Amino acid sequence: MQKIEAVIQPSKLDAVKDALLEVGIEGMTILEARGHGRQKGHTEFYRGREYTVDLLPKIKLEMVVPDELVEKAVQAIVSSARTGKIGDGKIFLSKIDEAIRIRNDERGASAL
Amino acid sequence: MQKIEAVIQPSKLDAVKDALLEVGIEGMTILEARGHGRQKGHTEFYRGREYTVDLLPKIKLEMVVPDELVEKAVQAIVSSARTGKIGDGKIFLSKIDEAIRIRNDERGASAL
Amino acid sequence: MQKIEAVIQPSKLDAVKDALLEVGIEGMTILEARGHGRQKGHTEFYRGREYTVDLLPKIKLEMVVPDELVEKAVQAIVSSARTGKIGDGKIFLSKIDEAIRIRNDERGASAL
Ligand SMILES: Nc1ncnc2c1ncn2[C@@H]1O[C@H](COP(=O)(O)OP(=O)(O)OP(=O)(O)O)[C@@H](O)[C@H]1O
Ligand SMILES: Nc1ncnc2c1ncn2[C@@H]1O[C@H](COP(=O)(O)OP(=O)(O)OP(=O)(O)O)[C@@H](O)[C@H]1O
Ligand SMILES: Nc1ncnc2c1ncn2[C@@H]1O[C@H](COP(=O)(O)OP(=O)(O)OP(=O)(O)O)[C@@H](O)[C@H]1O
Ligand SMILES: [Mg+2]
Ligand SMILES: [Mg+2]
Ligand SMILES: [Mg+2]
Repeated sequence: MQKIEAVIQPSKLDAVKDALLEVGIEGMTILEARGHGRQKGHTEFYRGREYTVDLLPKIKLEMVVPDELVEKAVQAIVSSARTGKIGDGKIFLSKIDEAIRIRNDERGASAL
Repeated sequence: MQKIEAVIQPSKLDAVKDALLEVGIEGMTILEARGHGRQKGHTEFYRGREYTVDLLPKIKLEMVVPDELVEKAVQAIVSSARTGKIGDGKIFLSKIDEAIRIRNDERGASAL
Repeated sequence: MQKIEAVIQPSKLDAVKDALLEVGIEGMTILEARGHGRQKGHTEFYRGREYTVDLLPKIKLEMVVPDELVEKAVQAIVSSARTGKIGDGKIFLSKIDEAIRIRNDERGASAL
């Protein structure tokens, strides 16, 4: 199992969720975040407001997926979140050792 | 040291915190999140409002604990967060390589 | 690549960001969190309001950095976030297996 963390533009959340559903990924957790990127002086717009590189509104997605779905998920995120402009976001992958479904104590990949 | 990430129903936060305190876990970080689960079409209620499977309000708990407390913590979370209904949540375990207490530079499990 | 997670006092965010920039760390994600620490009965002040140990407002920073910057980043955070009083916060380190820049599919440390 791996954890995929993706920081994306808020306007792309629906497209990314749909793209993930198409590759079979349903379970995910969504957090509101602010981002600090490179490109000082650069500005991004969000809901009509202009933000400098500092503390841009971002959405952070977290999903734990079985190993065989990782690359499909990454492709789904990249292709749905990309605009080609700076600020499109980042994806990070890391290892998860165990997953537990609280309702029934199910463990491992079948608990995802 | 391991990181325990738990996504739970917001109404269960107090019960889960109490159960964790009882097994000796005090330090934890709490984030407001939204969740996307399985069971499309299913709805959950939160503060009198009905949510479909999409973007349900959830609480995410993060706690780093010494290895010997992991299973006790998981049991405490499962038994205090469970209602038996779908949507009860998930727990994920992963490895933490180092912990540092900012106040005094203490490192390792004694910094938890 | 490693992930640095730091839970700090909200009033220290600007100082910590500046200290990280000075050691060359630009990319980071910032989350609003609440913390539960040790020292029951102890209170902390935030924006004129008094909080007990329970659910103190905290800022959580997440940044993925190349291995050779980890200790510099930790030192930058510790020295800029420390007040010497309880509640200064924690830093956790863990391994990241891959990073992807969404704009151009760049991978690895050069995507950070
Ligand atoms: N190294 C990092 N660690 C944690 N979060 C990061 C990191 N780099 C970027 N982020 C998060 O991703 C968001 C978007 O980053 P961004 O896409 O601007 O990255 P970038 O490296 O500047 O790429 P680009 O050149 O395409 O803009 C940031 O606002 C921040 O929230
Ligand atoms: N694979 C996952 N990765 C990250 N977060 C997840 C994952 N699966 C679930 N979650 C989070 O946990 C919350 C609760 O999930 P939920 O308990 O509905 O899981 P489930 O697999 O549908 O189990 P159940 O059948 O008991 O409902 C979701 O709203 C989401 O925030
Ligand atoms: N083990 C932990 N896991 C996850 N988050 C933690 C942990 N310990 C502390 N935190 C987070 O860090 C915040 C600050 O913790 P704090 O600095 O009070 O730690 P402490 O161990 O009590 O140290 P001190 O004695 O200096 O107060 C907490 O409010 C919580 O958000
Ligand atoms: Mg950028
Ligand atoms: Mg469900
Ligand atoms: Mg404390």
